[in-house]
Amino acid sequence: MLLIGFYIAITAEAMTAALAAGRRNMDWFGVCLIACVTALGGGTMRDIFLDHYPLVWVANPYVLLLVCGAALLTIPLARLVERLRWPFLLLDALGLVVFTVIGCNIGIEAGVHPIIVIVAGMVTGTAGGILRDVLCNDIPLIFQGELYASVSMIAGIVYYLGLTGGVQQDLMAILAMVLGFALRVLAIAFKWEMPKFVYDRNMRK
Amino acid sequence: MLLIGFYIAITAEAMTAALAAGRRNMDWFGVCLIACVTALGGGTMRDIFLDHYPLVWVANPYVLLLVCGAALLTIPLARLVERLRWPFLLLDALGLVVFTVIGCNIGIEAGVHPIIVIVAGMVTGTAGGILRDVLCNDIPLIFQGELYASVSMIAGIVYYLGLTGGVQQDLMAILAMVLGFALRVLAIAFKWEMPKFVYDRNMRK
Amino acid sequence: MLLIGFYIAITAEAMTAALAAGRRNMDWFGVCLIACVTALGGGTMRDIFLDHYPLVWVANPYVLLLVCGAALLTIPLARLVERLRWPFLLLDALGLVVFTVIGCNIGIEAGVHPIIVIVAGMVTGTAGGILRDVLCNDIPLIFQGELYASVSMIAGIVYYLGLTGGVQQDLMAILAMVLGFALRVLAIAFKWEMPKFVYDRNMRK
Repeated sequence: MLLIGFYIAITAEAMTAALAAGRRNMDWFGVCLIACVTALGGGTMRDIFLDHYPLVWVANPYVLLLVCGAALLTIPLARLVERLRWPFLLLDALGLVVFTVIGCNIGIEAGVHPIIVIVAGMVTGTAGGILRDVLCNDIPLIFQGELYASVSMIAGIVYYLGLTGGVQQDLMAILAMVLGFALRVLAIAFKWEMPKFVYDRNMRK
Repeated sequence: MLLIGFYIAITAEAMTAALAAGRRNMDWFGVCLIACVTALGGGTMRDIFLDHYPLVWVANPYVLLLVCGAALLTIPLARLVERLRWPFLLLDALGLVVFTVIGCNIGIEAGVHPIIVIVAGMVTGTAGGILRDVLCNDIPLIFQGELYASVSMIAGIVYYLGLTGGVQQDLMAILAMVLGFALRVLAIAFKWEMPKFVYDRNMRK
Repeated sequence: MLLIGFYIAITAEAMTAALAAGRRNMDWFGVCLIACVTALGGGTMRDIFLDHYPLVWVANPYVLLLVCGAALLTIPLARLVERLRWPFLLLDALGLVVFTVIGCNIGIEAGVHPIIVIVAGMVTGTAGGILRDVLCNDIPLIFQGELYASVSMIAGIVYYLGLTGGVQQDLMAILAMVLGFALRVLAIAFKWEMPKFVYDRNMRK
């Protein structure tokens, strides 16, 4: 079930990443690279931090083909993908919670401290989007107040607490994902935002 | 032979990277760092992805001195290097194909899937330039339509297919490099470009 | 002693990084992430380059809490932290030399070439600030002429030469840190700068 969610999520991430690349007039290769970085960058970073080899896409290179295929397919379908804004926001929210739970699982397998389990989930869920924005030369969107990383953190904490509380793993994964998904969708719908730290004094370090 | 090509290529990459740093008024340290990242960043990234340690420059730190020396030497010679634009484009094309073949070889040694062999070649050939542009705060040049990553991909595929087809390794390396080099030079000469995905609707994810 | 210096240094780095995030109107999560990247990014990069696992913050996740706590505490205290500019410059200088000596030690333990020992010190001391500037979408400050990486290099060289010359390790660490600290403070006080490579001819590669 997580695996199906994973494939749906990387496909959706690849398609929205392709649109971001298209808005910067990138060529087809750039579109594929931005899609790969966005869809697979979070998991790659997590695996490098945890020394967890081989990387997902090295062990199973067909995910690269899937991501590049989805990204290239987005080019002729751009107008359609744009009109499907809500479905894609939902798929993106699904991806966030699926990636988070997968990341937590890998942290648990690696036997790291609970804090690092949560961090592994958050890195998996959010680092791809941050890398995308760095490559596109933006200040990462994720820092602009959206409840995104915080949803990942809450889903990860709930998932981990449930597991240590003895709840069966598959059930707990579903519960954490439903909770995180609902939270993310509500945050979008009601424009919930994280407080920002606005500091504009002209001081250079 | 690959080794000689490698030293020529990192020297040339270091010198053109130094010019990029100079255009952003960086200090001497910045010039050295941009040169190291450009010349050695692709191989470093490949080795981290493949868990292939020690890294090239950790095992042989004299390449760092070579790269920094070439970069600092570029400062007094900037006007000369600029006038030698064509020779440097040729050296850069040489570097691209040499890096690609070296990267494919390391992928083959590591026993990874053929797709990852090609990707290892592409990362080696192109990631340094991408990192340079990120550090210089540009949208990576490589995404702007030039046939660069695609040349690396084609050279890698031809090289790998030749090897599996039984061609002797040194011969196949030369063939793949000549093909890639010719393709790259023709692409520059005739301004061949990759199609771009231009998408300017005002949609934010 | 190094450990105490390490905790003081990451706290100070976290607080100045939080101000940088605040100047870009980031949300609380962005503030924490920028703080973690700045305070721990250099050591993380060094450990990945040297294949030195587990990473500092994976082995001891409480440093993450310390960094995030210090960063969030900076938000209500921003005006105070700004007024304490000189103390923070001194703490930052302390961090630079402490990080450098810690990085050199890890390089020595890993048994790498002396050049790489110095590089390990420099990466530990300076890469966090570079990553911060990349995430904040600036051209890294460190390339703009300040004596920063060069202080790290000199402290590292002196430290390594002293050790190979037979000086006792703790004593040599203190000597190298005092020298580096003095050099950095003098550089700030007298606005010593590294020469820049200014090259503004309109040549695109």
